[in-house]
Amino acid sequence: MQKPSLPSGTRDFAPQVLKRRQAIMRVLEQVFLSHGFDPIETPALENLKTLLGKYGDEGDQLLFRILNSGDFMGKAPEELRSDSKALASHISDRGLRYDLTVPLARFVVMNRGQLTFPFKRYQMQPVWRADRPQKGRYREFWQCDIDIVGADSVLCEAELVEMYLESFAKLGLGVQVRINHRGLLDALLPALGSKSAWSEFMISIDKADKIGREGVSQDLKNREMGHAVSVWEWLCEAQDLDSFEAKLEAFEARKIYEVEDANAQSVEQGKAACEKAIHDLKLLKSLLPDQASVVLDLTLARGLSYYTGAVFEVSADDARLPADFRLGSIGGGGRYDNLTGAFGLADVPGVGVSFGLDRIYDTMEAAGLFAEDSQAIAGVLLCPMDEESFALATQASRDLRAAGIPTEIYPSAAKLKKQLDYANNRGYALVGIIGDQERAEQCIMLKNLQTGQQEKIGMQQLTEQVKGVLGV
Amino acid sequence: MQKPSLPSGTRDFAPQVLKRRQAIMRVLEQVFLSHGFDPIETPALENLKTLLGKYGDEGDQLLFRILNSGDFMGKAPEELRSDSKALASHISDRGLRYDLTVPLARFVVMNRGQLTFPFKRYQMQPVWRADRPQKGRYREFWQCDIDIVGADSVLCEAELVEMYLESFAKLGLGVQVRINHRGLLDALLPALGSKSAWSEFMISIDKADKIGREGVSQDLKNREMGHAVSVWEWLCEAQDLDSFEAKLEAFEARKIYEVEDANAQSVEQGKAACEKAIHDLKLLKSLLPDQASVVLDLTLARGLSYYTGAVFEVSADDARLPADFRLGSIGGGGRYDNLTGAFGLADVPGVGVSFGLDRIYDTMEAAGLFAEDSQAIAGVLLCPMDEESFALATQASRDLRAAGIPTEIYPSAAKLKKQLDYANNRGYALVGIIGDQERAEQCIMLKNLQTGQQEKIGMQQLTEQVKGVLGV
Repeated sequence: MQKPSLPSGTRDFAPQVLKRRQAIMRVLEQVFLSHGFDPIETPALENLKTLLGKYGDEGDQLLFRILNSGDFMGKAPEELRSDSKALASHISDRGLRYDLTVPLARFVVMNRGQLTFPFKRYQMQPVWRADRPQKGRYREFWQCDIDIVGADSVLCEAELVEMYLESFAKLGLGVQVRINHRGLLDALLPALGSKSAWSEFMISIDKADKIGREGVSQDLKNREMGHAVSVWEWLCEAQDLDSFEAKLEAFEARKIYEVEDANAQSVEQGKAACEKAIHDLKLLKSLLPDQASVVLDLTLARGLSYYTGAVFEVSADDARLPADFRLGSIGGGGRYDNLTGAFGLADVPGVGVSFGLDRIYDTMEAAGLFAEDSQAIAGVLLCPMDEESFALATQASRDLRAAGIPTEIYPSAAKLKKQLDYANNRGYALVGIIGDQERAEQCIMLKNLQTGQQEKIGMQQLTEQVKGVLGV
Repeated sequence: MQKPSLPSGTRDFAPQVLKRRQAIMRVLEQVFLSHGFDPIETPALENLKTLLGKYGDEGDQLLFRILNSGDFMGKAPEELRSDSKALASHISDRGLRYDLTVPLARFVVMNRGQLTFPFKRYQMQPVWRADRPQKGRYREFWQCDIDIVGADSVLCEAELVEMYLESFAKLGLGVQVRINHRGLLDALLPALGSKSAWSEFMISIDKADKIGREGVSQDLKNREMGHAVSVWEWLCEAQDLDSFEAKLEAFEARKIYEVEDANAQSVEQGKAACEKAIHDLKLLKSLLPDQASVVLDLTLARGLSYYTGAVFEVSADDARLPADFRLGSIGGGGRYDNLTGAFGLADVPGVGVSFGLDRIYDTMEAAGLFAEDSQAIAGVLLCPMDEESFALATQASRDLRAAGIPTEIYPSAAKLKKQLDYANNRGYALVGIIGDQERAEQCIMLKNLQTGQQEKIGMQQLTEQVKGVLGV
């Protein structure tokens, strides 16, 4: 007899946890709908052709692949039979959804004739990654994404940031939304000297959260990029200014792209990128509610291989969290100029953000936001003492339920103690006991488990009486 | 450039269809919750150890298997490299969820210390089967299951049937619920002569829907089971009686298990099975609302390899369906004595039913139940004519949304015609246009697209005015 287990990195959700997760999703959904976003769903199974090459080499490695049905080895070239990597693409045509952005792009291309653009969609579904499981990282986890496809104005960015603020306010969790713009980072290129140096610089500063500012400087030196340390130090200096506006002004005034010995074209491009970014960020800031929780983070270098404009990252910032609580970001996103290019449809801009449902849950739990969950059910458990009482219990349950009162019948004629234990475990304060006496009198013994009070109530009066006791 | 496609048997759900599907799920969920059922979710990925051997040989073939990560061939025995079937279990440890019953059993065993029994759960999740796709049959489809675990009274069966009736009444779809009991079928064994003849008989009568009663008689003769034809004819005769009670009485009076030359033990077992079934069915019938839509179907032979008591099947029975509409059952279930036995926990009885979400949707659509879906949105589309108007649009959207009015801002300063086309496509009857004049006067040009009327409204009056026009 086997002892059952779950695959590593996957979880069951028992009722209490699931109800909280669903409540979080309902809050997000209401925000999304109120902003005119429509839901879509895509299949868990996608053709590997759709998925491969979209997430970099590492992403390709992390895809879960489905073994083809039937005699899959029959079609595999003999000489590849011991080369797992090469063989995989011959014995597997489908994989599991890895994120919600590539499926969105595929959906938009396949349905472009039917969709109204700009297309504002939300999507809440699980995704799968064959990553090493660890705290806050699962192999099967949920993403909640909102994207605006086919519009390139800053109004989109402003709406998404506002939806972050609205959603987390409704969830009751304090957060900080950090914003940066690809154009500000592109403006650093002349100073860094080459595209490859620029890339290395971004990889390095992306680690600042973990290794600190000094760590980044050291890392740059280790990469033999000593010349970049001054750029980094200047960036940190600007970052330490105390407002969104002040940071932007510092960036604007510094003209960091003006580097004497850099080539003219590179300087020109840096200038254009910088000016566009500053224009966009000023406009964005002017459209946002004036909240301290939205900050410009000049050091934020997120998803630079695909984002082309604004980038966002949300982290919890809540005094109720334990001081040592660290879980990384609970959301993020950005603008991408060319969402559907890989599927043959050019020039479709998009911008989107993601809510990391699993981390939001873990963070809310750590902040104690679920502590007040009441287990009490404002309803009745009916307790039939024998098979003959089933009919009366059924009749009573119909009356109560028709009046909107959640009602259960204990599903067998077990001993009263067992039934009352069930009532207590499930959180029923009120039970209706039915035995032969009650049957004879066509009534129910209504018992308040908190006070111990009990009283026989005729079937005609039952609904009113229960409503009165429950205060509903 | 690749043309994207979906794996065969899978579907995208665009907003309109998805919203209807979600509405169906919300209706079911409300019924489930009002009866005290709690939700759980289990992972899409299960260990193959958990899944294999639970669905018969055919089921094992239909499982979607996940290819192991890394050098999966490195661990596979050399001599199996051309034998796909044998190799599969060496290169794949996990599979996709095939139904919701086996995961429930696994969940109950793994969490039995934390659960309150009887455990009433509902679960709505997709499942995957590598079946040949056809009309009404998908490779990725949703199941909605309700089960009661750890109780064996007929009250459970009564509650589940009532929940079927309640759910389909709320969905507005006419249905017929057919009920049978394993015990009535077991009572036929002495007359059929052997366990194997009994099994063949059941396989044969299960095809009556497709091949008709005469077809079953012929099929039995082809199986060299001529002696079973009279049993089948008698069963049909009893089935033609006009009430639940009359059929039961006929079965009771006939004592079909009394077969002179059968062995005594077999007769005794047949008698016991028959009497238990008749007792259960009488009690069940007495607990159900008196509705013509619940019928006893003595010929219903469903899932007899796992069900041990009552069995249920729901089909659409709705005058609005086209005469040639055929999609099979839209729900079904039954009682099983030993839910968790395969995972080492004996004597846990269960009973459950399933709602076939995809077929319910297809049936409701065929019956025209979605025809009245209104596309109109009781909200406002704000139309900024230039970048400078974004701020006023944003402010107006906040005011309107705070008053509970769904509000969108067209996400760029496109030409007015484009913005009005969007409003029409999305179903907005009301738009608020904002250009330089409105900015100067701090007002919005509110335009009713149906009447063509338009009027400038000051920001202070906007919310009240919009509420008045929308009648909310």
